Amino acid sequence: MPHIPLESHLPGITGLLEYRKDTGAPIRDLTQILMRGPSTLTEAERELLATVVSHGNECRFCTTAHAATVDMLLGESETSEKVRTDISTAPVSDKMKALLTISALTGQSGKLVTSGHIDAAKAAGATDIEIHDAVLIAALFSLYNRYVDGMATAMPDDDGYFTALADRLVNHGYSRLPQGYDHLKK
Amino acid sequence: MPHIPLESHLPGITGLLEYRKDTGAPIRDLTQILMRGPSTLTEAERELLATVVSHGNECRFCTTAHAATVDMLLGESETSEKVRTDISTAPVSDKMKALLTISALTGQSGKLVTSGHIDAAKAAGATDIEIHDAVLIAALFSLYNRYVDGMATAMPDDDGYFTALADRLVNHGYSRLPQGYDHLKK
Repeated sequence: MPHIPLESHLPGITGLLEYRKDTGAPIRDLTQILMRGPSTLTEAERELLATVVSHGNECRFCTTAHAATVDMLLGESETSEKVRTDISTAPVSDKMKALLTISALTGQSGKLVTSGHIDAAKAAGATDIEIHDAVLIAALFSLYNRYVDGMATAMPDDDGYFTALADRLVNHGYSRLPQGYDHLKK
Repeated sequence: MPHIPLESHLPGITGLLEYRKDTGAPIRDLTQILMRGPSTLTEAERELLATVVSHGNECRFCTTAHAATVDMLLGESETSEKVRTDISTAPVSDKMKALLTISALTGQSGKLVTSGHIDAAKAAGATDIEIHDAVLIAALFSLYNRYVDGMATAMPDDDGYFTALADRLVNHGYSRLPQGYDHLKK
């Protein structure tokens, strides 16, 4: 049961973004810009970074949501599974392995990211902005993970919930719940 | 030296908010609403929560900046010092001790916040929104701490820097650098 009264039909982060809409709005905006704005990283790559951080922080709601989003974007579930098990075995580029490592470390502590990790990413072709975004995505999902678990938010009781949520994040991004998605509120 | 090229006259978070202004804007907005918007917690109390989280995450830039802000708001440095050493000995209310504990735990992992911590805060008079805000402040500063240290940002080389920064945060909040504060950019 959540530590404060939240709408029972809005599990995980969704009830929190509605509980304080004024703080929810800039959190949504930041996420939309970073995860769906112009970038040389694909949306699936950015969602993989969010997944590896949420997995490292053991946030079940966030990990399930973003792994489902990766799977929908890629049309397979092997990549998100292997990234969670062992980044080195995942079917992604060397650049992505280096960025996933930087995000995973940042999720634990920014101090764990050394110049060696940065050099490895650059040698694999990562640009400054890609390295920046890997760190900021890790920082942002460390916020989400703490917010979701620090308030003891609920997991959904409907197995289809994460498929519907992934569909929303793939097709509508992180802005406010659009018209026609009222079933996610039920 | 930072992991990516940042303006050398903008240490810590300040160079990052300028490096990607589009992501910087909603981060500033969220911080302004949460730390300076309407609340039953004073600005000094909210800055103390930011300080205890940044201290727990060992982020030197953030801890120094927010402790200096607390000190300027309170006109003394004992409170911010004792909060960093041992929350139980700090000259703050029992409610604030309970909220500081919740923030400090959330900074490590949201899963560490138990219903016992919430009950203790409520027994000391904390409201649902105050508990929510203690968790979200901890989550937000966990973002800042990881962003600042994950990019290996620089500490200022001028001893007076944090006094000027605290003055800005006390008198102008977290919005964009206002006119007349160009000395912070030099």
